[in-house]
Amino acid sequence: MHSNLFESESNVRSYCRNFPVLLKTARNSVIQSSSGMEYIDFLAGAGSLNYGHNHPKLKSALLDYIGNDNITQSLDLYTEAKAAFIDTFVGTILAPRGLDYKLQFTGPTGTNAVEAALKLARLAKRRPTIGAFSNAFHGMSLGALAASGNADKRAGAGMPLGNVTFFPYDGYMGPNVDTVEYIERQLNDPSSGIAKPAAFIVETVQGEGGINIASFEWLRRLCAMARRNDILVIVDDIQAGCGRTGRFFSFEVAEIKPDIVCLSKSLGGYGLPLSLVLIAPELDIWKPGQHNGTFRGNNLGFVAATTALSFWSDETFKASLQQRVSQLHAWLESQVRRYGKERVRVRARGLIAGIEFHRDDIAAAVSAEAFERRVIVETCGARDQVLKFLPPLTIESDIFEEGLDRVAYAIDKIISKTGN
Amino acid sequence: MHSNLFESESNVRSYCRNFPVLLKTARNSVIQSSSGMEYIDFLAGAGSLNYGHNHPKLKSALLDYIGNDNITQSLDLYTEAKAAFIDTFVGTILAPRGLDYKLQFTGPTGTNAVEAALKLARLAKRRPTIGAFSNAFHGMSLGALAASGNADKRAGAGMPLGNVTFFPYDGYMGPNVDTVEYIERQLNDPSSGIAKPAAFIVETVQGEGGINIASFEWLRRLCAMARRNDILVIVDDIQAGCGRTGRFFSFEVAEIKPDIVCLSKSLGGYGLPLSLVLIAPELDIWKPGQHNGTFRGNNLGFVAATTALSFWSDETFKASLQQRVSQLHAWLESQVRRYGKERVRVRARGLIAGIEFHRDDIAAAVSAEAFERRVIVETCGARDQVLKFLPPLTIESDIFEEGLDRVAYAIDKIISKTGN
Amino acid sequence: MHSNLFESESNVRSYCRNFPVLLKTARNSVIQSSSGMEYIDFLAGAGSLNYGHNHPKLKSALLDYIGNDNITQSLDLYTEAKAAFIDTFVGTILAPRGLDYKLQFTGPTGTNAVEAALKLARLAKRRPTIGAFSNAFHGMSLGALAASGNADKRAGAGMPLGNVTFFPYDGYMGPNVDTVEYIERQLNDPSSGIAKPAAFIVETVQGEGGINIASFEWLRRLCAMARRNDILVIVDDIQAGCGRTGRFFSFEVAEIKPDIVCLSKSLGGYGLPLSLVLIAPELDIWKPGQHNGTFRGNNLGFVAATTALSFWSDETFKASLQQRVSQLHAWLESQVRRYGKERVRVRARGLIAGIEFHRDDIAAAVSAEAFERRVIVETCGARDQVLKFLPPLTIESDIFEEGLDRVAYAIDKIISKTGN
Amino acid sequence: MHSNLFESESNVRSYCRNFPVLLKTARNSVIQSSSGMEYIDFLAGAGSLNYGHNHPKLKSALLDYIGNDNITQSLDLYTEAKAAFIDTFVGTILAPRGLDYKLQFTGPTGTNAVEAALKLARLAKRRPTIGAFSNAFHGMSLGALAASGNADKRAGAGMPLGNVTFFPYDGYMGPNVDTVEYIERQLNDPSSGIAKPAAFIVETVQGEGGINIASFEWLRRLCAMARRNDILVIVDDIQAGCGRTGRFFSFEVAEIKPDIVCLSKSLGGYGLPLSLVLIAPELDIWKPGQHNGTFRGNNLGFVAATTALSFWSDETFKASLQQRVSQLHAWLESQVRRYGKERVRVRARGLIAGIEFHRDDIAAAVSAEAFERRVIVETCGARDQVLKFLPPLTIESDIFEEGLDRVAYAIDKIISKTGN
Repeated sequence: MHSNLFESESNVRSYCRNFPVLLKTARNSVIQSSSGMEYIDFLAGAGSLNYGHNHPKLKSALLDYIGNDNITQSLDLYTEAKAAFIDTFVGTILAPRGLDYKLQFTGPTGTNAVEAALKLARLAKRRPTIGAFSNAFHGMSLGALAASGNADKRAGAGMPLGNVTFFPYDGYMGPNVDTVEYIERQLNDPSSGIAKPAAFIVETVQGEGGINIASFEWLRRLCAMARRNDILVIVDDIQAGCGRTGRFFSFEVAEIKPDIVCLSKSLGGYGLPLSLVLIAPELDIWKPGQHNGTFRGNNLGFVAATTALSFWSDETFKASLQQRVSQLHAWLESQVRRYGKERVRVRARGLIAGIEFHRDDIAAAVSAEAFERRVIVETCGARDQVLKFLPPLTIESDIFEEGLDRVAYAIDKIISKTGN
Repeated sequence: MHSNLFESESNVRSYCRNFPVLLKTARNSVIQSSSGMEYIDFLAGAGSLNYGHNHPKLKSALLDYIGNDNITQSLDLYTEAKAAFIDTFVGTILAPRGLDYKLQFTGPTGTNAVEAALKLARLAKRRPTIGAFSNAFHGMSLGALAASGNADKRAGAGMPLGNVTFFPYDGYMGPNVDTVEYIERQLNDPSSGIAKPAAFIVETVQGEGGINIASFEWLRRLCAMARRNDILVIVDDIQAGCGRTGRFFSFEVAEIKPDIVCLSKSLGGYGLPLSLVLIAPELDIWKPGQHNGTFRGNNLGFVAATTALSFWSDETFKASLQQRVSQLHAWLESQVRRYGKERVRVRARGLIAGIEFHRDDIAAAVSAEAFERRVIVETCGARDQVLKFLPPLTIESDIFEEGLDRVAYAIDKIISKTGN
Repeated sequence: MHSNLFESESNVRSYCRNFPVLLKTARNSVIQSSSGMEYIDFLAGAGSLNYGHNHPKLKSALLDYIGNDNITQSLDLYTEAKAAFIDTFVGTILAPRGLDYKLQFTGPTGTNAVEAALKLARLAKRRPTIGAFSNAFHGMSLGALAASGNADKRAGAGMPLGNVTFFPYDGYMGPNVDTVEYIERQLNDPSSGIAKPAAFIVETVQGEGGINIASFEWLRRLCAMARRNDILVIVDDIQAGCGRTGRFFSFEVAEIKPDIVCLSKSLGGYGLPLSLVLIAPELDIWKPGQHNGTFRGNNLGFVAATTALSFWSDETFKASLQQRVSQLHAWLESQVRRYGKERVRVRARGLIAGIEFHRDDIAAAVSAEAFERRVIVETCGARDQVLKFLPPLTIESDIFEEGLDRVAYAIDKIISKTGN
Repeated sequence: MHSNLFESESNVRSYCRNFPVLLKTARNSVIQSSSGMEYIDFLAGAGSLNYGHNHPKLKSALLDYIGNDNITQSLDLYTEAKAAFIDTFVGTILAPRGLDYKLQFTGPTGTNAVEAALKLARLAKRRPTIGAFSNAFHGMSLGALAASGNADKRAGAGMPLGNVTFFPYDGYMGPNVDTVEYIERQLNDPSSGIAKPAAFIVETVQGEGGINIASFEWLRRLCAMARRNDILVIVDDIQAGCGRTGRFFSFEVAEIKPDIVCLSKSLGGYGLPLSLVLIAPELDIWKPGQHNGTFRGNNLGFVAATTALSFWSDETFKASLQQRVSQLHAWLESQVRRYGKERVRVRARGLIAGIEFHRDDIAAAVSAEAFERRVIVETCGARDQVLKFLPPLTIESDIFEEGLDRVAYAIDKIISKTGN
């Protein structure tokens, strides 16, 4: 360990505090440390490695591209790699779903995609306010942060964050309150003090917020209510998109059509920075250059992404993914059966899942214990109270089983310790 | 040209409007189009390609790294590639200059580095206001945009931007007004209405703003004034840093030591997304995870950056760079001699330079004419009135000469046309 | 009518549009027009004439004071009239209730008192956010307006209003949702996106908002929750205070002790501008002059107010007030009995009352019809859907009866017309 | 002295700290204390007593009005007193000057008039930003405070104040810099970061800010520049208006026509709260009730104001005022002659004047010494460094002379003490 070396890093570093190991190589769902230890990866780059580490097809495409001196950085100039990406994205993803979005390439971070989406929504509707949801996470730059719920992260701004109104997410007010109805009542009450937002920005599954899953019905009702009130809907599909929930877009099954969609994380396929904002054509009112970013033309990202997108027309890939989903869900249910719903609540959609325990401190202890057993599995939620599962979509069945076994062992150990 | 294909892109696209060509491959300062045309590149990825396109040493390091399945995306976990980068950055860049900054890796875009710097300054000083300068450009996310001067880009926010006060940059109030003195007078006047900022954020050379160059004396006086008033100084060295002005940091020659420095663009060496915030140790008050970003662990960026940093201990590289600087400056002077100071004003530091013509529309016309002659050279400034030179630091002498000749020809043609 | 003369007034004028008559003289609850018509006044200067028009005792005190050249305007210098007011307010109002508030005299408008209260709360807690309630009204200057719910009035600001979070008032989420519990859940959820406010500002009865009445239990629970969470409670008693609900303070019966109380409207007794902010001693952290206002020393207001305060130690006055309350409530009940709860919902506390009809347009029609019958009774609520009763506390029993009879007739006429 | 009684007041009290005396009666420019001491009043209610204390004509009108039970408080209903005021204001003030403003009565404080003006300007121009000036003072409610320069008072807000840009007032950048030109350069530079304001709000003489006097030329150039750039001009004539500078409006001599004018302070004549916003007819886009305020119908104010306005058609009154102006200016010049321009700088227009001494602490010491000699004369300026003269316009010549003699004595004593 170069521990003294890493002391040069700012105190802001975080994952490395919980998983203090020097990483060297990685293949699909397994990471090798510098000292030769092997870790099963249930973190997957916080959802940016849906296709695993260093997928051989993507690797091969990259080596080819670089080896032939193809252009690497091109701002928003036209390149062959970008053309191929657009062609594939439109052909493989949009067209089969009957979608006609315009594509905006932003600086290759999720927060930048969110910033672009929020700016465009405000511009289009000429209203400064955005509606966000309890427990939302959208990023760390000032605009995205203002729409994120976490109080510690908000405090990091060092100034008041405004022009965002927080509304209750599905289920936030308990099982008997329909939050869409409550929101609409506020919006239609001319004396509620609540400004009509330009847009709602919503995650179909709140990852950082604790694996809170909106029902398809709620999503449909939210969108219908938004339409009725001339409010746009932005789906932040940065973590839940790119197949994480079992389909390419997390909102497909809900049969909604957001006005704007933000993609990033696994879009670049190989863990390479790439972001994309999808815009309903009538909303594409940007002036040239009104939003930009130096690295919006990261061609290595285009190359890896193009290859990765092709998986979505591969039936084997999709069948395998469904098998992993079943494997995870079955295991989660086994945990509930074992400990009872009082101690273990599970929430899952596709390959994003969370376990919330009866005490807030258990998840972190399980994560630490699992790391001892060489599984990297993180926590999430406002109080880090949820154990969060984000395995690669491509994880090998047996390694998945092995990883889940180790986590089961860790849970067992920690719950035993807590004595109830 | 896949022109119909690119119509899928949002209207926000901009460079490709002025330089409509489909790019394929590139080596150092020359780009090849899909149809086999060759372009001399005086744009260099808006300053993100200081070491040219696809530098063979960096390429080789990348091919090795990828080929061996080294880890690509690692969030802020420890990796060997990151360790090597830190080691090299501290050893090659910081230590020889007597600097002891802490390193914060942010999401790999310049705007994200700026966002982190602004948040930290506000947190550290517990004051919400940032002081920015006329004609500044710091990025497109909400916090950075609020500190950027361009009215069109600001309008893109769709809401009022606050908590930033704009002050006049060096020379902004004419040659006879010392803007530092004016700023200090406002700050010391308890009734000026001007809040004391947490920090000034300043570019030593304003690239987007029109190649406005602060004198070293002004920078020193700004920093001294800031210290006297307990205000931090953030140098946004995203475009002017990484050697662009002839030394690694643009502020070295001025002998100032900013409290915070933002790096991005050419840091990643190969045009790969990478950003870094340098923080005076006593200001590193971040809580773990208080600012983050999925792609802050872009290991391909670390690998290329590490190799590129090694150039800064290579005397041949540095000597060659100075030669290019002389070459550019001599050419610029020849233009002034040719057209006179009334028609051509040049501003340059190192390999960043601008020509401002006697009429605002000339620069764009020259850029278009140069593109016809297969040189990519862009414009900048509030009214696109400045022709902007950002050649790779590594540009071959003869290609540089050839490119400058072509630009000279373009200037000649346009100025002839304007008839005066 | 000088109708052409009044055309010099801005379009902003409003009451005179609904009640277009030139007023001349007034005694207690009856106003005489220039042409000799007499109007029964159920508006009472929007609650600023609780002691009726030109009360003889107050009139006599004013004539004496003016006649003897006592000082009229004194900023915040000491005057005998101010001393007498303070003495009486402390002795008659505060001491008997065991209250030890400090007294801040602000510019003599309600909105200025609210501005002072909000500033002090933010300063004391070092938090920028204020919690306000759905349907709240606190005034028209920027700080107070930001805490007011009415969308049209908010739009008048011409800019986004921030640093206020709106919470649901008692009953806002229906009879089965405890809004205090919901608010506390949001505040205790570190990821709700809801900043902890410095203070809640609350009306015990929302006058402008539609005569919404918080239960005493809700007020107690709100205050207890605020204490638990280190949040201040400001009661805006500008309309509901000074006896309007039957006791001097509207919150007395609820047995809560707000941290800050705003008084204005009827405080000046004779309809004279006067405002007062009551501050828990430990919160009185103002620096000298940190909030001021030229007319905070309106001695005519002090003189009239001092005399008016003496009524609160007069048992006859208090008994008579209770009699009027009974008279009003009995009449309201008779209306419910007559039309049924489906068509007529009444809300009342003391001498502030509202009737909400089954259709939103009825209240305005009844108000117009009543004006034809020479009763001035206004509407309130987000859609002007509530008929609002604010008679002088001192209204003569027979005139009250006569006025109520006329309103009853007007209701009957309008409801008959609506055909259901 | 009821000193213990006044301890019930908030710490915010200020004038009474410097002038600790219990006041009882007052006539024109002399105030009598409770213990029979007589004070010459050079403070005049901070400019709200231009016609002196308890002017017999106004007193008589008030006694009549009250004695006959004329209506006192009328919201914005029509009353005979209001009709008479409008008639007189239009006839005596507006018409002779060729002005056609609409009249908006706001809550009767200066800050409320400013709030209304700022809201209307923002609404009319659909721009959120207001341009204010260094050392400005416009009031203490949030909107007006955001346009006021004083840092301590701004800090009282407890939150960042935004949507106002501060520009340099006439002379602020030294004698050689034309601040109007500098402001226009910033506004016309699309990259200055300075948003185009909806309006400039300006005092022709900055009272609280230290008696800074804009030249007529500067005011004309400011207005012309504003017109060129489609920016409104609001003159805050609250302190400098109502005759203070020698004419009714302070801007008359400059021959400018502001789009909006704010009046208060001496408008009510007798020190009674009254405010008025004058609006160019084409800007009167208010919706009914979009700005209001309970005490906008303070009829005692209308009655006193109407009588006071009649003075402005009385040649004796105007001649006497010019005589007082000459008396004050001659005395000020005598002070300069006596102490030299190094030690004593005087600034005066009409009967508002300031003396700035060579040391910042002298003004307060002179004020205290003058109070010992029974003259009430306050200080102003960012550091209380200016002795401020605001005598009643109606001050008797001999009492004025006596008061000035006493101040001269106090200056002499303090300057002698300082030893230079």
